Amino acid sequence: MTITLADIKRARRTIAGHVLRTPMLPAPPLSALTGADVYVKYENLQVTNSFKERGACVKLAVLSADERRRGVIAMSAGNHAQAVAYHARRLSIHATIVMPVTTPFVKVKATEALGATVVLSGETVMEAQIRAEAIAAERDLVWVHPYDDAEVIAGQGTIALEMLEDVPDLDILVIPIGGGGLIAGNAVAARGVKPEIEIVGVESALFPSMWNAIHRGNRPCGGATLAEGIAVAKAGTLTLPIVRELVADIVLVEEIFIERAVNCFLTLQKTIAEGAGAAGLAGMLAAPERFAGRKVGLILCGGNIDPRILASIVVRELEREDRVVSFRLTIPDRPGVLGQIAGRLGELGANILDVAHHRLFLDVPAKGAKLDITMETRDAAHAEEILRALTADGYAPERMRSGATLQ
Amino acid sequence: MTITLADIKRARRTIAGHVLRTPMLPAPPLSALTGADVYVKYENLQVTNSFKERGACVKLAVLSADERRRGVIAMSAGNHAQAVAYHARRLSIHATIVMPVTTPFVKVKATEALGATVVLSGETVMEAQIRAEAIAAERDLVWVHPYDDAEVIAGQGTIALEMLEDVPDLDILVIPIGGGGLIAGNAVAARGVKPEIEIVGVESALFPSMWNAIHRGNRPCGGATLAEGIAVAKAGTLTLPIVRELVADIVLVEEIFIERAVNCFLTLQKTIAEGAGAAGLAGMLAAPERFAGRKVGLILCGGNIDPRILASIVVRELEREDRVVSFRLTIPDRPGVLGQIAGRLGELGANILDVAHHRLFLDVPAKGAKLDITMETRDAAHAEEILRALTADGYAPERMRSGATLQ
Repeated sequence: MTITLADIKRARRTIAGHVLRTPMLPAPPLSALTGADVYVKYENLQVTNSFKERGACVKLAVLSADERRRGVIAMSAGNHAQAVAYHARRLSIHATIVMPVTTPFVKVKATEALGATVVLSGETVMEAQIRAEAIAAERDLVWVHPYDDAEVIAGQGTIALEMLEDVPDLDILVIPIGGGGLIAGNAVAARGVKPEIEIVGVESALFPSMWNAIHRGNRPCGGATLAEGIAVAKAGTLTLPIVRELVADIVLVEEIFIERAVNCFLTLQKTIAEGAGAAGLAGMLAAPERFAGRKVGLILCGGNIDPRILASIVVRELEREDRVVSFRLTIPDRPGVLGQIAGRLGELGANILDVAHHRLFLDVPAKGAKLDITMETRDAAHAEEILRALTADGYAPERMRSGATLQ
Repeated sequence: MTITLADIKRARRTIAGHVLRTPMLPAPPLSALTGADVYVKYENLQVTNSFKERGACVKLAVLSADERRRGVIAMSAGNHAQAVAYHARRLSIHATIVMPVTTPFVKVKATEALGATVVLSGETVMEAQIRAEAIAAERDLVWVHPYDDAEVIAGQGTIALEMLEDVPDLDILVIPIGGGGLIAGNAVAARGVKPEIEIVGVESALFPSMWNAIHRGNRPCGGATLAEGIAVAKAGTLTLPIVRELVADIVLVEEIFIERAVNCFLTLQKTIAEGAGAAGLAGMLAAPERFAGRKVGLILCGGNIDPRILASIVVRELEREDRVVSFRLTIPDRPGVLGQIAGRLGELGANILDVAHHRLFLDVPAKGAKLDITMETRDAAHAEEILRALTADGYAPERMRSGATLQ
C-alpha cells in the first residue's frame, strides 16, 4: 500500500490547529428516513466549506523551503482551488489556480479573495489542465494534485480518524468518489484503526469512472450532474489500487437521489450540502437495504452549492410532495371570475403563489380563457381536495407539473 | 436572583446525555463580514432543531412521579411544542400541545409524530393560550411554560456554560429575545462564570416587548415578522428582572436585517437558521460598530424555517445583489425578435430564467409589444453591462424590481 495508517496519523499532527476538527453528530431524522443509525461528519463547516483543506494543508506543509519559494499551482473550478488558496496564503506561499473559462464568477472571486492568482483558460477541464501543466513547467511551480498525491490522500484520511474517535462502533463509512482521494485516504485510516469496518463508495451514475476501473466496465462518463465535485472521468492511479483492496462496493446514484439528498440535508438536518457533499446520503437513499440497521458514518464533504440551484431544488421537492401545485383551469372570460376563484382557493386553505391568464388556446371558446394558478398546499391530500372542489365548480382543472417558475 | 449559576450547573448534569452538546465553531466568513471575531453555537443541530429542548428536558426531569403520571401541557406553534413532545416521549410522560388553528400543517404533523396529542384551537396565540389553560385546569395537567419558569430558564442557560468552556475568552454573547428565557438563563450562566462578559440582546423591531419593559417605552408590538419565534408581546415576569440586571443593551432589528442574516448563515456558514435563530447575527449586521474587534459568541438558536420561505429569501437576496435581474423591453411584434434577444443575452453571458410577452400596454404601438425577461447575471456590473447593450440595441430596457416570481 502506498499510503499507510502511520502516514495519516502524521498528517493529523500536521493539520492540528490549521484545519477544523469538524463535528460528528447523530442525525436522528436521517436515521428515521433510512432505517440505519446515521452519524454525519460536517466537513462543510471547514473555512472554505469542504474537506479539501485537509489534503491541501498536508501537501503544502511538507514542501521544502525551495518549493515554497517557487510557489504552487493547481487546476480546479471548485473546492480544491479554495482549499489550496487558503492554506497557501496561511503559509505565505504563492498560489496560481487555473480554472476553465466557464467557472462561475463567484468561485473565481472567492479564490482571488483568498490571495491566489487565478488564470482563466480552456473551455473544458481538460483544456484547463493542459494549460495548467504548461504554466507549471514554464514557471517551475509545484503541482498540487486534487487527489493523485500521497500527501493529499493522507490528509483526507484524517477525517476517518476523527469519526472513529467520536463514534468507535461505526459499522460502515459511506464516502463519495470523484478521483478517489477522499475514499482512499479514509479507507486506509478506518480499516487501519478498525479492520472489520466496511467502506462503501458512492459515485454519480453519470461519472462511474472508479466503478468502471474496478469492474472492468465501460459505462459512459459525462452529462450535467448536480454533483460536479465528483464528476471525474478517470480514476486516480494512486487511489485505484487502494479502492480495489479496501472498498467493499461502489453504489452508483442517479441525479434524482443526489437532488433529494441535498434537500434532506437542508430540511431535516438544517445544513447545506453541495451535490457531491450529499452523494453519500444519496447512496443510502438509492440502496437503503444495504445500510438498514447498521451504524453508518456519512461524510458530508462539501457545502459549496449555488444558492439559486439550492432554492430551485427546494421548490422542486415541494412540487414533488404536492406542497406546491399548479392547475390549468378553463374559465369564462368575464369580470369577477378571478376574484371568485381566488376567494374559493382562500376558503380551501390554498395560498396562491402565481397566476397567469391565457386567451390564445384554440381549445377554449372565443369568450373563454385558460387560467394557470400555482399555489401552496398542505400536502398531497389537500392538493387532491382542491382539485375535486375546482372540478365540482366546473373549472375542469388539469394538473400541471413543474408549475413553479424558478427552476 | 431567582436563578443562580448553581441551578444552571445542576441543569447541565440533568441534560447530559439527553440533549446534544452542540458544536461551537469559529465563523471566519461572518467575522470578515462584521469586523468582529465571531463564533457560532449551533443549537439548530439539536434533534428538534432548536435550543428549546434544554429547558423542556430540565423541566420534565424534575417532575414528581405524580406529576409525570398526570401528564404535561404546553401552548406553542413552534419549537417549544416539538421540544416538549420529544422529551416527554423520551420520559414516557403524556404531552398535550395546544396550537392555534393557523399553525402550519407540517408543524402539527411534526409534533404529532413525536407522540404528543395536538389540540388545534384559537385563531390567535392569545386564544390558544386561554384554551390551553382551560384544558390544563380541567384535566389537571402540569403546565410547561416556554420561558417564564425557573427550570426552563436554567435549562436554556446551559448553552453559555458550553460556549465558555469551548471559547473562554469571549467578550460578548449576542442572544435573541422573545419572552426572555434564553437570554436570562445565559446571562446568569455567562456572567456567573465570567463577570466581565457583556450580554447583548436582540429583539425584532416589530416586537420590542423586552425593550419597552426595560426602557419604559411603548413602541407598538405586532406585524408579520420572519422571526415568529421571538414575536412575543409581553416580557416574562421571571426573565425581566434578570435582563434588567445582567444585559448590557438590547438591539432592535428591522426585518431586512433578519432576512439578510438568514441568507448569510445559508450562503456563508452553510447552515439553516430560522428568523429568530438568525436574530443575533441580524443584530450584528444592524449595529456592526457595537461589536467590531470583539470576540463574539452568537447563539444560532433554531433552524425551523419553512423551506419555501427560505428559497424565497435566497432569490430575493440574489435580486438585491443584482445576480437575478429583470428587464422590460419594448420590441417590435414580429417573428424572430425573441430569438435575436435571447441570442444576444447568451453572447452577453446572461442565463435566462423567465420570459413573458405583453401586448396590451397602450404605451407601445399596436404592432409592438413588451417583453419581460428575468435573467441570472454574474454581479451588478454585469447587469449594468447588459442594460447598456440592450439600450444600444434599441430595446429601451427598463429595470424591474422583484422580477423573480417566487416570493
